[in-house]
Amino acid sequence: MKNIIEPRAATITKQDRRDLNGHSSFILWFTGISGSGKSTLAHGLENELYKSGMHTYVLDGDRVRTGLNQDLGFSAADRKENIRRIGETAKLFVNAGIIVLAAFISPYQKDRALARSLVEAHEFVEIYVKCPLRVCEERDVKGFYEKARAGVIKQFTALDDPYEIPENPDLVVETDQASSIQCINRILRYLEANHLLKRGA
Amino acid sequence: MKNIIEPRAATITKQDRRDLNGHSSFILWFTGISGSGKSTLAHGLENELYKSGMHTYVLDGDRVRTGLNQDLGFSAADRKENIRRIGETAKLFVNAGIIVLAAFISPYQKDRALARSLVEAHEFVEIYVKCPLRVCEERDVKGFYEKARAGVIKQFTALDDPYEIPENPDLVVETDQASSIQCINRILRYLEANHLLKRGA
Repeated sequence: MKNIIEPRAATITKQDRRDLNGHSSFILWFTGISGSGKSTLAHGLENELYKSGMHTYVLDGDRVRTGLNQDLGFSAADRKENIRRIGETAKLFVNAGIIVLAAFISPYQKDRALARSLVEAHEFVEIYVKCPLRVCEERDVKGFYEKARAGVIKQFTALDDPYEIPENPDLVVETDQASSIQCINRILRYLEANHLLKRGA
Repeated sequence: MKNIIEPRAATITKQDRRDLNGHSSFILWFTGISGSGKSTLAHGLENELYKSGMHTYVLDGDRVRTGLNQDLGFSAADRKENIRRIGETAKLFVNAGIIVLAAFISPYQKDRALARSLVEAHEFVEIYVKCPLRVCEERDVKGFYEKARAGVIKQFTALDDPYEIPENPDLVVETDQASSIQCINRILRYLEANHLLKRGA
């Protein structure tokens, strides 16, 4: 029994996992400046999907900057690598049958386009979480704007660094115009209209 | 409605996802030299787990070296970073409620220890896929040994580069002594004995 060459077992496919879960898998990519409400919407939406028995995972700065991407800073090159790795990781989750809610400033159009290019067209939904800088700075939930204005935080998007507004997002939600619940419902309606929440899709 | 500060929705936890899936989540880390049978065992075991309705994902070189870690080579530093990123990604999957089957040569004890340190003690099972170099070289399923002997592939583990044998693996399977099915059953018995496959664990 020294050199057995056995046929490799059939690989479980993405479709197999979707069948097991009873729903499709894809990436919801939330982009917007700090304080616009990306993580709040991602976690709030995940709650709703979980209640419906869907298999989801939120990727956001809290989870990625402290682990996988802890070696990266905020230069343009590092931001690019940050988004590339997140895109590749999100792709693995999609292949595993999971609905990924990715909430990242992701300021550059080119980097968002790269993340989109890694998966199939219908597997990537870009959601622009729109909110005026003035309002985000007033909110300043994490105190980042104050620190950035004081020069304690450098390379801060929308102050020192550019934020490139999405040219053709799949969806726009305006968090200074609507409540979180309204924005989440808006996204849910979009997903339903596009048959992304269909059981067995 | 310009500056609504709303309570953030309760975050879905790892336990919530395990409850939804009906099983625990953890990492099965297959280590061994090229041709020892790591990927074959990982995919074969995944088949069995899938049949039981479990939520799994195989991380291996085919999936990671072409995507997330495509920027890395085979120097000791790059191998370390390769395993670090895989460990961090596997951790995200465990948090998402998935059983991860990670199949990587992972030649250095220190790097495997790092991967283990990222999750809780009971969430990491190190499986040493043991097979003599001579037998692996005879198999040479991918033709890597021939290329390495010819100098076409450099830094090849067990020829040019060291493979550090696991000192305290949780499990050892010897693929020159037992068939794949026997090895897979051995792992399944280990998981059952350690209550890792218990529904609702």
